[in-house]
Parts: sequence; structure tokens; C-alpha cells
Amino acid sequence: MAVNGALPVNVRVVIEGEEEAGGESIAHYVQIYPANLQCDAAFICDTGIPAKDIPALMYGLRGITYTEVEVRGANHDLHSGEYGGIAPNPLHALALIITSLKGADGHINIPGLYEKMQKPTAEELAFWNEDPLHFNEAKLEEMGVTQLTGEADYSPMERMWARPTLEVHGIVGGFTGEGAKTVIPAVAKAKISLRLPPEIHSEEAFNLFERRVHELAPAGVTVTVHNIHGGEGVLVSPDTAPMRAAAAAMKETFGKEPLFLREGGSIPIAALFYNVLNVPVVLMGFGLPDDNLHSPNEKYSLSQFYKGIRTVVRFLQNLA
Amino acid sequence: MAVNGALPVNVRVVIEGEEEAGGESIAHYVQIYPANLQCDAAFICDTGIPAKDIPALMYGLRGITYTEVEVRGANHDLHSGEYGGIAPNPLHALALIITSLKGADGHINIPGLYEKMQKPTAEELAFWNEDPLHFNEAKLEEMGVTQLTGEADYSPMERMWARPTLEVHGIVGGFTGEGAKTVIPAVAKAKISLRLPPEIHSEEAFNLFERRVHELAPAGVTVTVHNIHGGEGVLVSPDTAPMRAAAAAMKETFGKEPLFLREGGSIPIAALFYNVLNVPVVLMGFGLPDDNLHSPNEKYSLSQFYKGIRTVVRFLQNLA
Repeated sequence: MAVNGALPVNVRVVIEGEEEAGGESIAHYVQIYPANLQCDAAFICDTGIPAKDIPALMYGLRGITYTEVEVRGANHDLHSGEYGGIAPNPLHALALIITSLKGADGHINIPGLYEKMQKPTAEELAFWNEDPLHFNEAKLEEMGVTQLTGEADYSPMERMWARPTLEVHGIVGGFTGEGAKTVIPAVAKAKISLRLPPEIHSEEAFNLFERRVHELAPAGVTVTVHNIHGGEGVLVSPDTAPMRAAAAAMKETFGKEPLFLREGGSIPIAALFYNVLNVPVVLMGFGLPDDNLHSPNEKYSLSQFYKGIRTVVRFLQNLA
Repeated sequence: MAVNGALPVNVRVVIEGEEEAGGESIAHYVQIYPANLQCDAAFICDTGIPAKDIPALMYGLRGITYTEVEVRGANHDLHSGEYGGIAPNPLHALALIITSLKGADGHINIPGLYEKMQKPTAEELAFWNEDPLHFNEAKLEEMGVTQLTGEADYSPMERMWARPTLEVHGIVGGFTGEGAKTVIPAVAKAKISLRLPPEIHSEEAFNLFERRVHELAPAGVTVTVHNIHGGEGVLVSPDTAPMRAAAAAMKETFGKEPLFLREGGSIPIAALFYNVLNVPVVLMGFGLPDDNLHSPNEKYSLSQFYKGIRTVVRFLQNLA
């Protein structure tokens, strides 16, 4: 608009500021007022590229089920000398539940979870297994570790982008200050999420998870599983006019063809636009692997910001 | 002194205000200046009785080793969508370590730990197995639970008072606020203690624990085990002149003979006095099971306080 006085296409902007808290409001909005969002294509700018000089468009995202598992033992905190040996310990119960949900091999022991999974395409498997751009090495360096963990039977890219994963994000309860306190807490909670391939619905996964946690609860404690939030994964077709317009724009700005990749994160609005508005969805973003997402010193490069603006301008022109 | 103008015996008072933080200073003091504490008997007032009308003297305490297990994965916090499936998760590693250290059956899997254990006496085993005063029922009520947990092959009293126990007191790391954050933390720590029968030295137990934790660490993480503090358990002879003086004093105040019991907690100064000063030790206290030790609303009854004063006065007279 600044250069040409007008946009080459009509644009409706939706800002989702609540995603990290679950994004419930926008999910209701899209489902209740789809007419307000009528369009020919949806464009979401919330992804990254593998490196400054490797452009990429995303065609796959994982869904998520975020839970809090609450375990109660005695009706008040206990002295571990007085009651150690006969008291239920909710922290220990959580460790038992977590370990039974996922072992050191990365396999998730939730009956029914893997049953609905679809096999990735032959092209995907070939790219993931060959790893021609040495993404696996890059991940080691990004994390500062000497080995990758998880299911040994699947390539790291398949594990990150297409397999369900289960992670513990925090455990609340007991004494967590400096030094020592010999307490057996009455209550402890663990924040546990599942990332899900698009073919597993988040609500379904939550139900399987909840049932399994109850089965795994050791004697002497009562367990409640809270559904904190959920969102669906999506696989969008890379072969649509908007996606071709996006790929051409990236090529013009970066000087090379973009890769078509999946991403392991969750952007629930992508599945909502795709399924409710029933339009092609373009996931194009400019984040870099060293942006420290969800970590201290999270950043976004100004150079990526300006390159992104130039790319999006071209995308809109191509789209027109 | 208020009533008679003088004490019937000479008294030296030592106040330990640092016990819950490990009590290092007093341990050094007793070992370096035993001459300052020369005496014919040591009297420690830091125990309880089973009920208001059941007086008791303690002859056994467990020792303790309090540790912090620190697990490090990646060099910074990670986004669980981006890295879930290939990243080491220190919280999950802690759950694996904790579960391997102690299963749902209460058995501690630390090689060498049980080897030095001595069998309790036939009288002790008979009292614990028969439970003539229904202590087990009382414990259920105190905790507000429907069943006791722990090693099924041993009576609850043996588990509380004479068996080693392992408890998790808190787990630090990741996100523990309200709601959700999808982080895989770089570091997580667990506070874990062992209660120890007197025949297992706390330093020895720490070394066995540390070695075992390193063995159990899953691939991809580095583990450090910190020794926060330790203290020894003790079994004092109930058949000494000071103990008989204490029993007589309790009988005078409560109107019945005291029980001789062990306690599961740790009072490291008791072992120090017993072993370094080499004198009979009397453990006589007046706490009640509903005092909520180490819990919110911890209390000490005024009626127990005054009854305690009267009992201690008689104890000193009997001792003289």
C-alpha cells in the first residue's frame, strides 16, 4: 500500500494473541462466524525456516493435548520421618505414572494412541531418512547435546514432525526452595502434553491419556486429569495456487526454491481455517532455529523481519 | 528452681536451632569441644507420644541422607513442539531415576543398602506385628487415607521406624505456574532423602545412592548428586539409670508406665551425644500425632507443654 497506493488483493487480518494460553476464543469465533472470515486463501505467519539461506514452506503441523495430572495422598503434608514407609507420596506416584506413560525408549504406552496413525508418504520417508541437508547434525548443535533421544525405529525428523510425543513440562508440589525440607506433600501436579499427528484428534487423545493415567495410578492416591487445552494438527496440500504463489515469492526473495517441510509445533488456527473455512492454507514464516522459542532470551531477527515483509508483499502480488 | 531455690542436679543447656537446615554447626561443636559438654546423662526433648494418655520414651531414631539430584539436558530451554521426540527431558529423566530407585512396592533398589541391616529383636517384632494398641489404625486416621503403602513384607511400624525409606520432597524445573507452557527445561532437580536405620551410616548411604543414580541416568542427560545434609540414627539402651528415672517421672505424671518405642524421624544430635560424649541418652518429648509436623498449621499443645514441664522436673529429681 505504501508503494502502490493499494493492495493487490483484499486482506482480512485476524490477530490471535491467546495461542499460548490455549486459544479458546478464536476457536469459538471461527466456528461461530465463518462468514466474517470468508476468503479464497488463508495465510499464517507463525513458522520458521531451517537456516537464513534455506527458505521453506510448512505443509504439516502437529496437534496438542495439554493436561495437568493432579495426585492426592494424605489430607495434609506429612513429616517424612514420621510417615516415610507407610504414606502415599504424590510426587513418587507422579514419577511412576510418567515413567509408565513413556519409557526411556521414547515409546508412549497409551493403548489406542498409535492405532489411527497414517504412514507418511514415500517421499517424506526418503527425505527424513536420508537427511540430505544434515538437519540432524544441526539439531545436535542447536540443543548443545551429543546425542538425540527418542524412538530409535524412526528417523529424528519423523519423531519431531510426524510421531506423537509426550513431554513433562513441570511438576508442582512439595518443597522446591533452596536447601532441604523433609516433607511428603499432600498434593502434587504434573503438566504433561502430547503432540499429535493430524490424524489423531486432540480430544480423543486426551480421553485415551486420561483413562491410561487412571489405570497407572498406584495404590493409596487419587488422581484427577485436567484438560488444560487442545488443538488439532493439519496436513495442507502443497499443490494449490496460493502455495505456488508463496513458493514463487520465496524464490524471488531468497534466490532459491523453498523446501516443503512439516513442523512439530502446533498452530491450532491452521487446522481451523483449513477445516472450517475450507480454503487453501499457506504457512510461511521466517523464524530461525536459534530464536530460543519458549526459552530465556527468545528473539526475532530484524533481518528476518524485513526479508519477511518483502516476501509477503511478493506473495500477495503473485496471489493477485 | 522457682519452687525449691535450686536444681537437684547440675544442668548444661544446648540449644540446636539449625536442625532442619542440617545442623552442621552443632555437629562440629560436639566433636571439637566434648569437654564443654561433659555430663552423666544427656536429655533431649524433641519427640512425641502416641496419644495424650499414652506416655512413651524413645530408644531408637532413624538417620537421614538428604540429597538433590540435578539433571541437565540441552544447553537452554526448548520448545516441546520443535524438539519433542529428539530432545532429552530432564524432568522425564528424573521420573525414570526416581521410579528405578523405588518402585510402587516400596522396595529401594540401591545395591548394598540393605546389606548392613540388623534384625530387630524378637520383642520388637512381636510388638510391631501384633500392634496391640492399634497404632496402624491411628495412622490411617492421622493421614486421612484408606490404606498404608510401602513394603508389604514388613509391618507398618517396622517400615516407619526401622526400615530405610526413600522419599521425593520436591521437583524443581520447567513451568509450574497456572495454566500451560510447552517447555522442555534445560535443567531439573529433585530433592530426595533416605531415612536410615542406625546401622547404616549416612555418608555410606549417600555414596551408594550417588553411584546408583549415575547408573540409572538415561542417555542424553548429565547428572550431579549433591549431598545436602546427613545425620546418624541411634539405638540407645533403655536399661540405664537415667532412662529408669525418666520412666518413673512419666509414670508419676501420666499415671501409667511409658511405652518404649522407636521413632522414624531423625535427631542427629542424639547419635552425637551417645557416640561422642559416650553417656546414656534420654529421648523424652510430649508432641502429639496431630501436631502437623512439617505441615501447614503446625502446633504444640499448651496442655502438653505444662505436662512436659512437670514431667521434666520429676525426671531431674529422680535423676538426683
